[in-house]
Amino acid sequence: MDMLEKKLSQIKLLLLDVDGILTDCRVFMDSSGQWRRLFSIRDGYGIRMLIEAGYQVGFITASKAQDIEERAKVLEIHYFSHGSLDKLPAFEKILAEAGLKEQEVAYMGDDLFDLPVLKRVGFSATVSDAIDSVVRAVDYIATRPAGNGAVREVCDLILKYGALSKNVV
Amino acid sequence: MDMLEKKLSQIKLLLLDVDGILTDCRVFMDSSGQWRRLFSIRDGYGIRMLIEAGYQVGFITASKAQDIEERAKVLEIHYFSHGSLDKLPAFEKILAEAGLKEQEVAYMGDDLFDLPVLKRVGFSATVSDAIDSVVRAVDYIATRPAGNGAVREVCDLILKYGALSKNVV
Amino acid sequence: MDMLEKKLSQIKLLLLDVDGILTDCRVFMDSSGQWRRLFSIRDGYGIRMLIEAGYQVGFITASKAQDIEERAKVLEIHYFSHGSLDKLPAFEKILAEAGLKEQEVAYMGDDLFDLPVLKRVGFSATVSDAIDSVVRAVDYIATRPAGNGAVREVCDLILKYGALSKNVV
Amino acid sequence: MDMLEKKLSQIKLLLLDVDGILTDCRVFMDSSGQWRRLFSIRDGYGIRMLIEAGYQVGFITASKAQDIEERAKVLEIHYFSHGSLDKLPAFEKILAEAGLKEQEVAYMGDDLFDLPVLKRVGFSATVSDAIDSVVRAVDYIATRPAGNGAVREVCDLILKYGALSKNVV
Repeated sequence: MDMLEKKLSQIKLLLLDVDGILTDCRVFMDSSGQWRRLFSIRDGYGIRMLIEAGYQVGFITASKAQDIEERAKVLEIHYFSHGSLDKLPAFEKILAEAGLKEQEVAYMGDDLFDLPVLKRVGFSATVSDAIDSVVRAVDYIATRPAGNGAVREVCDLILKYGALSKNVV
Repeated sequence: MDMLEKKLSQIKLLLLDVDGILTDCRVFMDSSGQWRRLFSIRDGYGIRMLIEAGYQVGFITASKAQDIEERAKVLEIHYFSHGSLDKLPAFEKILAEAGLKEQEVAYMGDDLFDLPVLKRVGFSATVSDAIDSVVRAVDYIATRPAGNGAVREVCDLILKYGALSKNVV
Repeated sequence: MDMLEKKLSQIKLLLLDVDGILTDCRVFMDSSGQWRRLFSIRDGYGIRMLIEAGYQVGFITASKAQDIEERAKVLEIHYFSHGSLDKLPAFEKILAEAGLKEQEVAYMGDDLFDLPVLKRVGFSATVSDAIDSVVRAVDYIATRPAGNGAVREVCDLILKYGALSKNVV
Repeated sequence: MDMLEKKLSQIKLLLLDVDGILTDCRVFMDSSGQWRRLFSIRDGYGIRMLIEAGYQVGFITASKAQDIEERAKVLEIHYFSHGSLDKLPAFEKILAEAGLKEQEVAYMGDDLFDLPVLKRVGFSATVSDAIDSVVRAVDYIATRPAGNGAVREVCDLILKYGALSKNVV
């Protein structure tokens, strides 16, 4: 945990993949033909508490689904990139916009497309049912399930050990 | 259990947080843009049996979702407060309206915002996947899952040991 | 199992509670205000195979939900009673209509309201997360989950040992 | 695993049952009266990666549901057969159209209706909660759940050992 605390102590921004991280990776079609997913209220409060503590939060998703965009709006996150499986350009754009170094960013992702970003950030995390090569590549594997607690768990770690929380304690 | 039975023997009113207690904490957007959740029929019968045994029931939720309001109507509960993360004012208003003391109230909640109420009531309960500090603060942790049995379990405890059940046995 | 086989060997009709048996006991409101639930395709095939083997099937539900009625139609079951928590009158009406004795009927239910019927039939079954007093009262507890396999499991038992299957082997 | 690798080394086409394989076997009715199911994004990426590696993919489902058809379109699979519980004719038609031998095809199914195809193909797989006789009949049982990872797991096996992957390594 000492190594993790050290990495977390630099974090100022949390970036999140959506399907499989903020959700359990499943989607269904509604009566209007839109694909929908289940989000966690508990994860949402984690994100809101991070933001209120001065941290920044962003989503980087390959999907262009309406409910993801709406969830981002409800939570009033700072960065939102959607529609591309190649996540590095979005990552670099957000980094520049935020004026932060890679070590100051935490990222959660669950699939191969997340690996390029997971390998660059200061603190990388995933869920227990992520793709094997992702599980092997990250700093931290959440004990709570994807789509219902995993994001909250990482938010709570950042709230406890992150760069903007030091003075709070 | 002796301590629990003693606490339960004073209970006349059950107040419930909604997301994470009456549901598994997840929401999805439907085709009309409303956020929806899954409720348990079995929990609903627990609430109805409590009410028919003379107990009062209320929801205190931070959400303002339509399906929560509708669920409250279907179950014909006595108190309904929604739209504020600060739950103490609603708790105190209900207490005054019901003419009850704190020891006569049971409350179930799963997140930080529920702690102020959980610490005041005569019988506090939560679910096994609640936030850690809530798990540590309560009198009772339901063995059945949030959103599908946890509320029923507490209803059954109150039906068995509560203040209005004494004469029944 | 010998006792179970003997009981099953008389069964000609399977009656089913819906919420908590044919579903996991959870409901959600859709965009038109209707309460919906998740049904299992695998359970559905079990029911269809029973019917094609000459057995009769019926639902007895306290709910009046549209999706339950539609599911009953899709599966082309023989008896359908909805809208009453008192299930004995429906049970007795079906019994008379079918011209069968109680020993020739199997029933699955999960809650207190099912007990009167469960205690009368020749073969009573429930799911592992049913209310405790139901679990204690039945002949058989399905190993597969409510709403996704429990009904199929009982259908397969009847198909193997039931009164109309004897000549098949 | 040696036997499995040998079988997988001939595979050029993956055929999939839908309910219980690409989903957890559950359906719900939406506000327009259509029956819907939950699909996995992670399974979807497995299918897309297979296709991009030169493999062919098809669905053979007894259902005629709109969301299944739409999912097939989104994933741009090569073969799509729906509406019949007798799956052999569809299997044989696809085989002829693809110009492939049975040993070159992998099939995943979970119920009795899948057995005729499962017994014919070069590599047969199922999910852990499939019907017992299917579990006993197949070459491989996925460790990840139906509807959320089982298909991805088989896609990854084919990507690693399949006939069109040999030159890649």
